[in-house]
Amino acid sequence: MAPRDDAAMSDRPRPLGGNEMPRFGGPATMMRLPARDSAAGLDAAFVGVPLDTGTSNRSGARFGPRAIRAESALLRPYGMATRAAPFDSLTVADVGDVATNPYNLLDSVARIEAAFDDILASGCRPLALGGDQTVSLPILRAMARRHGPVGLVHVDAHADVNDTMFGERIAHGTVFRRAVEEGLLETGRVAQIGLRGTGYTAEDFDWSRAQGFRVVQVEECWFRSLAPLMEEVRGQLGTGPVYLSFDIDALDPAFAPGTGTPEIGGLTSGQGQELIRGCRGLDLVGGELVEVSPPYDPSGNTALVGANLLYEMLCALPGVASRN
Amino acid sequence: MAPRDDAAMSDRPRPLGGNEMPRFGGPATMMRLPARDSAAGLDAAFVGVPLDTGTSNRSGARFGPRAIRAESALLRPYGMATRAAPFDSLTVADVGDVATNPYNLLDSVARIEAAFDDILASGCRPLALGGDQTVSLPILRAMARRHGPVGLVHVDAHADVNDTMFGERIAHGTVFRRAVEEGLLETGRVAQIGLRGTGYTAEDFDWSRAQGFRVVQVEECWFRSLAPLMEEVRGQLGTGPVYLSFDIDALDPAFAPGTGTPEIGGLTSGQGQELIRGCRGLDLVGGELVEVSPPYDPSGNTALVGANLLYEMLCALPGVASRN
Amino acid sequence: MAPRDDAAMSDRPRPLGGNEMPRFGGPATMMRLPARDSAAGLDAAFVGVPLDTGTSNRSGARFGPRAIRAESALLRPYGMATRAAPFDSLTVADVGDVATNPYNLLDSVARIEAAFDDILASGCRPLALGGDQTVSLPILRAMARRHGPVGLVHVDAHADVNDTMFGERIAHGTVFRRAVEEGLLETGRVAQIGLRGTGYTAEDFDWSRAQGFRVVQVEECWFRSLAPLMEEVRGQLGTGPVYLSFDIDALDPAFAPGTGTPEIGGLTSGQGQELIRGCRGLDLVGGELVEVSPPYDPSGNTALVGANLLYEMLCALPGVASRN
Amino acid sequence: MAPRDDAAMSDRPRPLGGNEMPRFGGPATMMRLPARDSAAGLDAAFVGVPLDTGTSNRSGARFGPRAIRAESALLRPYGMATRAAPFDSLTVADVGDVATNPYNLLDSVARIEAAFDDILASGCRPLALGGDQTVSLPILRAMARRHGPVGLVHVDAHADVNDTMFGERIAHGTVFRRAVEEGLLETGRVAQIGLRGTGYTAEDFDWSRAQGFRVVQVEECWFRSLAPLMEEVRGQLGTGPVYLSFDIDALDPAFAPGTGTPEIGGLTSGQGQELIRGCRGLDLVGGELVEVSPPYDPSGNTALVGANLLYEMLCALPGVASRN
Amino acid sequence: MAPRDDAAMSDRPRPLGGNEMPRFGGPATMMRLPARDSAAGLDAAFVGVPLDTGTSNRSGARFGPRAIRAESALLRPYGMATRAAPFDSLTVADVGDVATNPYNLLDSVARIEAAFDDILASGCRPLALGGDQTVSLPILRAMARRHGPVGLVHVDAHADVNDTMFGERIAHGTVFRRAVEEGLLETGRVAQIGLRGTGYTAEDFDWSRAQGFRVVQVEECWFRSLAPLMEEVRGQLGTGPVYLSFDIDALDPAFAPGTGTPEIGGLTSGQGQELIRGCRGLDLVGGELVEVSPPYDPSGNTALVGANLLYEMLCALPGVASRN
Amino acid sequence: MAPRDDAAMSDRPRPLGGNEMPRFGGPATMMRLPARDSAAGLDAAFVGVPLDTGTSNRSGARFGPRAIRAESALLRPYGMATRAAPFDSLTVADVGDVATNPYNLLDSVARIEAAFDDILASGCRPLALGGDQTVSLPILRAMARRHGPVGLVHVDAHADVNDTMFGERIAHGTVFRRAVEEGLLETGRVAQIGLRGTGYTAEDFDWSRAQGFRVVQVEECWFRSLAPLMEEVRGQLGTGPVYLSFDIDALDPAFAPGTGTPEIGGLTSGQGQELIRGCRGLDLVGGELVEVSPPYDPSGNTALVGANLLYEMLCALPGVASRN
Repeated sequence: MAPRDDAAMSDRPRPLGGNEMPRFGGPATMMRLPARDSAAGLDAAFVGVPLDTGTSNRSGARFGPRAIRAESALLRPYGMATRAAPFDSLTVADVGDVATNPYNLLDSVARIEAAFDDILASGCRPLALGGDQTVSLPILRAMARRHGPVGLVHVDAHADVNDTMFGERIAHGTVFRRAVEEGLLETGRVAQIGLRGTGYTAEDFDWSRAQGFRVVQVEECWFRSLAPLMEEVRGQLGTGPVYLSFDIDALDPAFAPGTGTPEIGGLTSGQGQELIRGCRGLDLVGGELVEVSPPYDPSGNTALVGANLLYEMLCALPGVASRN
Repeated sequence: MAPRDDAAMSDRPRPLGGNEMPRFGGPATMMRLPARDSAAGLDAAFVGVPLDTGTSNRSGARFGPRAIRAESALLRPYGMATRAAPFDSLTVADVGDVATNPYNLLDSVARIEAAFDDILASGCRPLALGGDQTVSLPILRAMARRHGPVGLVHVDAHADVNDTMFGERIAHGTVFRRAVEEGLLETGRVAQIGLRGTGYTAEDFDWSRAQGFRVVQVEECWFRSLAPLMEEVRGQLGTGPVYLSFDIDALDPAFAPGTGTPEIGGLTSGQGQELIRGCRGLDLVGGELVEVSPPYDPSGNTALVGANLLYEMLCALPGVASRN
Repeated sequence: MAPRDDAAMSDRPRPLGGNEMPRFGGPATMMRLPARDSAAGLDAAFVGVPLDTGTSNRSGARFGPRAIRAESALLRPYGMATRAAPFDSLTVADVGDVATNPYNLLDSVARIEAAFDDILASGCRPLALGGDQTVSLPILRAMARRHGPVGLVHVDAHADVNDTMFGERIAHGTVFRRAVEEGLLETGRVAQIGLRGTGYTAEDFDWSRAQGFRVVQVEECWFRSLAPLMEEVRGQLGTGPVYLSFDIDALDPAFAPGTGTPEIGGLTSGQGQELIRGCRGLDLVGGELVEVSPPYDPSGNTALVGANLLYEMLCALPGVASRN
Repeated sequence: MAPRDDAAMSDRPRPLGGNEMPRFGGPATMMRLPARDSAAGLDAAFVGVPLDTGTSNRSGARFGPRAIRAESALLRPYGMATRAAPFDSLTVADVGDVATNPYNLLDSVARIEAAFDDILASGCRPLALGGDQTVSLPILRAMARRHGPVGLVHVDAHADVNDTMFGERIAHGTVFRRAVEEGLLETGRVAQIGLRGTGYTAEDFDWSRAQGFRVVQVEECWFRSLAPLMEEVRGQLGTGPVYLSFDIDALDPAFAPGTGTPEIGGLTSGQGQELIRGCRGLDLVGGELVEVSPPYDPSGNTALVGANLLYEMLCALPGVASRN
Repeated sequence: MAPRDDAAMSDRPRPLGGNEMPRFGGPATMMRLPARDSAAGLDAAFVGVPLDTGTSNRSGARFGPRAIRAESALLRPYGMATRAAPFDSLTVADVGDVATNPYNLLDSVARIEAAFDDILASGCRPLALGGDQTVSLPILRAMARRHGPVGLVHVDAHADVNDTMFGERIAHGTVFRRAVEEGLLETGRVAQIGLRGTGYTAEDFDWSRAQGFRVVQVEECWFRSLAPLMEEVRGQLGTGPVYLSFDIDALDPAFAPGTGTPEIGGLTSGQGQELIRGCRGLDLVGGELVEVSPPYDPSGNTALVGANLLYEMLCALPGVASRN
Repeated sequence: MAPRDDAAMSDRPRPLGGNEMPRFGGPATMMRLPARDSAAGLDAAFVGVPLDTGTSNRSGARFGPRAIRAESALLRPYGMATRAAPFDSLTVADVGDVATNPYNLLDSVARIEAAFDDILASGCRPLALGGDQTVSLPILRAMARRHGPVGLVHVDAHADVNDTMFGERIAHGTVFRRAVEEGLLETGRVAQIGLRGTGYTAEDFDWSRAQGFRVVQVEECWFRSLAPLMEEVRGQLGTGPVYLSFDIDALDPAFAPGTGTPEIGGLTSGQGQELIRGCRGLDLVGGELVEVSPPYDPSGNTALVGANLLYEMLCALPGVASRN
């Protein structure tokens, strides 16, 4: 994606800086970017999807967007490791939250789907602040409607490929099975990274493999850089559109305590950064950071991790220049 | 209700005592009472209704039953102010949790209704550990099916008489309007106590008054004993069956911080005790303590308040002897 | 103050409702009101003053505005006790934060003073979200420049009339002595309510009395309604302009744990509401709620109290209709 | 007690002031008073008794002294309500902690007893920072050895007159029965105030009454000043030596959440102050503040309440002047 | 150990599943397994040992069993990395807690010893939920009585080989010296892994080495897989009975903040899993997970780690099939 | 540095041991060492510098010294990995806190500078307990006055080389630029380790490199031992005086959540230990551990990390013997 020509760099929105307004003040938008009512004219947009009625254990992810935005005030515009300059390159803003229905999960799914249809209609690449993982299904529906079936990088402790949960077909643990059934994914262009823990059967992850997904259990990730893995993943996913779904519980609860279904033995936050930085070069059409549950995050640091990972996603989008 | 003759006092279940098992150990049932699979043979039963998908703001009440039970380990069998001796008088146990559906509020409502039909079928008086206030509707449906329309003592910061919330007819703020519409309540035998805060219209509580409810806003309760009020309420409600619904947010957040929609200027926990003790003499056919949200209750003390209030409900049931 | 004629009620900004956007979503402005860049055209404005470098003990009040706004999402437009209808009556918005200087208290004071000069220039009545109590001095300077010396209702655990603190003349405990010295107050029209605790000398509060202030120590407030007191205060303050300064530590730490210099034996939150409601009828030219320190408020409930008290201030402003 | 003549007022130790060292710095002694190795030459001494192995439910009181001292940094030397000037009147210091044995409760009891024998030998009046209530027994033994049987003001949620707990004769709930049996108390000069909750039998408090204690259950205290009660108590206790034992759980958990066996429906912190202030005029030979459990007190505010109540005890000692 | 023939797989107890009862409900037993009164007929049993009076610094481990059980609700039956199927292979239940004496450590030790004699008498392999490390001594006594001296895999930050603590011979830091002295261990078949921190002498760990223990200080573990180490350990320990003691403080406080004597520079939770998985093939006769202190674990995640590690122990028991 | 001859080992102060006073009691000095009024006669001194008015985001570091000291009670005298014996070798005490000015950052800087001049005048090597990073500037001024320009090992997430912050030249993010400008550093003998995150420009760290600093971004540190790096650093820094500045936010927030400007992807605490241990052999003239913010550290574990790292600094000082 080339940055929009009609937006001269100097006119692009930039995060409100810490020397203009102290970091503890200012608007509680993502990175203190301008709030916009729509994605029209934006290259990329942060969008909140407050939802936790798809979650099986601890709730609270409904407050994820608010908390991620609050902690994002600490972010500055340039990536020091990547030297990425997203705000020099892209027109980015915060387009607010999808109005989910707190009492009706299926209606929330429909509302999210409609909201992302709108965002995608303008050619914008959305970066979603979850909410629980259920949000992935309506977003992928909108993505597939816009782009056709997409590739997927899915970083998570869980495969989320259950057939049903408590008899329901839509919940935070079923979304990628539904996505396959609905033809939203190019199944040979899917990688699931970080899977672990306990399962209903010992074969739970085999369904993924049977679809052609690359499945990387967390034990393969321990004690090492994931840059080589991502080189392989880029090879696997090639040139088509790719969606990036990052469940914060892919990280070990030491790094991300505030989440609903934590699993021990997870990734470090540095590995999380490597995974997203390793998506640079793919045609990322959007991304999401899900399952931050603020009530279980008294320090705010899980939300801070989420904010940082969303920033890394922004830096990994096509068209973002690196300053070397 | 007379205590069951066939249960000699010495055979009745009693809470596991702190001199047999330290309070920090033992089963995590309510008051460390025996766990039972059904309410058959019980005079009263504690039953958990884990649910928070009917809540409008902070979630977390799904963990209410687990937390209330954990803190209830501190309770001893006799009431020192009332000299009530519930376990000398009644056969009481913990019948576990209703299996709510985490992803589907209406199905949860149906499941709760069925579970309470079962409990009531055996003649038992249930004391429910919520869960959010949505649980009141299915419980009242079961109550009305068993007893006909019932009187209601409703202690709460909120009237919960909205017509709809987010377009939905069933949510934690609509249950008593639904209950009136469905004929579950004797509307002249309803008292709502502790109402306060802000409203969508200045007339929000007038709907209640128009039904014939007695509405006691919290300002009438400040700085004084509520024993005289309860004498009036007992006069108002008379001799028919009465259900007692206590939303923990009736108490000030100082006393009950761990709840989903806290309102300042609330009752003290002592007033909460007065209100329940003041129900003694009514034909209580059941009760509930709702809206304890453990993620917002790091000390556990809100759950402890809930456990104590449920104990007070047990002591206020018909047939409980006082030791003087 | 008469509501502006040029703002028809139907056009006035209203808080975003919980049936349009769930309370856990939407913009993190005060009461989810529209954000405005300036106070022009507003009858009343919420304005954040993030500052904690004037505080003597626990810091953290710099995050007060952000936290108060987050919790204010729970507020609905009408007051159920007062039947006040502020948004029917006044044009109200959130004008964001003053850009304080984190490293230089005196520069922050100058910046606050300038910002309030601007707000007052448009005829708007500001309601400030602190920040520590130091903010009162620059606000009162702006007030006096606009209105001449003002009356003051000061609700606080502390008199804040020290001559110096650590040798400095400006800090959170010196502001009202400075205000007297600078002629910002009509000293016969000042009431300090809730004072208590320990002092550097036994005569600390006598300085206030010597200025002609009415000083109400907290022991006079215990166990009783403060409505009669406020009737007297209204008589004392009469008809001139009045500023309302409410330090959250006036409340007992049970009700407001998240503050920097808590003192036991304080007011209840209901008494806090009585004090503000009792200001109705005075010519309030502005108000402030200071000293909420979010790091010491993990539940968010102190910020929630702050949000409610700011709402009560809004309802007490001249020109707000009551719906009876 | 007359202040020691040999200590001129200007030489007496004073708390380190907030204008010399900021309140967040300085030594973590009680009120930032000088640390002393012994009580020799002191009129009054703060002494820590870290212990929680006598507790039945939540542990953690072993950290009580450390936390109370940390929060006491906020205290200034004069009482604003009482105008008491303890440091003008008495020579006071912090004599550190008794070295309790973490693994052996009976040895800890012996160590405490010996330490208090030493403190009392010098004529000093000790104010103990608990620790769980078990500390009362060895302290009372030392008191009785020094003064003969003493009167007792015991403010608590619990009577602590069990015969045994888990088969043991010494634990935090048995101390006052042991004290009676050992002849440490003048049983007609004992008042227990604030008792409540649930009991092993409905007659638990009757044992106290049978000894001649005055028992004031908490329901008699609600909604009113306790000054009249204390007038009666002063009449009851008369002129002999009196020990003051204040269990922080006498206060409602709203005011003192950080304690091991919280009971709802408790006193306010203001009532706690009234009770201690009402001891002025009695011949207080010492006092204790027990059962602050810091792990359950994340805000530190329970420790702050404890520090304030210990300060009130200091002000209530014989010989403290009031500045009027 | 062969699974019991008389328990057909379909009849074996299984954890209550998340599709039958939501994870936030159901009995608070370990993994929501059935509660049993005794270990008779069980291949393996989870047993709580609530105790913290043997601890030297932060208390709170008395609530360890309750918290571990609460968090264990998130566990599913199969191990995704090991493909272990413990509930297909073994008859497992939760046999509740040992009734420890809160006031008398030595009596608690005797009670634990007796309880484990009973459990072992039935041929069951116990997995203990601590409780502080003191529990190891009575358990090892029972183990040695049943099996003769055993091998030991001890994962911990501390060697726990002090001669005395505060003059006492039994406390959480002396248990393995006592075990050697009492002949409970085959000293050549002992490995201590993860030791670190500060010591009373620089030679503290040399006592262990002098007994013939393998001592692996944590620095040898950093940045690498511990699978090779465990291969060596399996070689060292060979074929006799082995007890597995895992102190949660072996993990870094980042991964396990809620413990009493945390030491920085510890293991990751993934390394903890490797250590236990590496015990597969040894003749594990039981295991324990000790020192989870819930008051220092507000998120519950330390208890969750503990629950996971206990599950890994179950999977490592002899007779557990792997599904490949 | 040779240990002072005039201090025989047996007379040197030692930390109060856990067998003399339980770890939860005793004086709240660093490691429970003796408190001293001055550094005279000391080889090394722990000194608190409570300050947080130089911080840009979360405040709270003002309580750093108090919290670090409280948690340091867990430290024993010998290093088990290094076998260092600091108290056998050096005369060490805690000299209390610098009296910073809470309201005036520049005055605080002056006060710190004067205090360190005094400490250095006696030949003592100070180890400072911050306090925010602003403290480095006045300490380095005193260091340079005493020793001439010094080498620097700076472990941090941030380079702290901004020219100004909010227009101010002195704040926690400008100190090392100021130090260079003032000639306090030998710029070729500076290493900055752990830098990462986001920046105002992509070139933020290049300023450091342009001065001749060695800059080690955190990505170079992941997954590996830093011992080889420190070998290089020792080569770079050679034999002159070296100051060690360790900002706790160099560690990942998983290991050190309680800090003001956390950055994800950080070092492990074990790497932090390696970095300090790797300074052994350099002529360390002092060190500091800054940016612990207790309000964001409810478990106390960040302060515990800080205490441990300060202990490692002590062990790395010249003249400390190793016991092999």
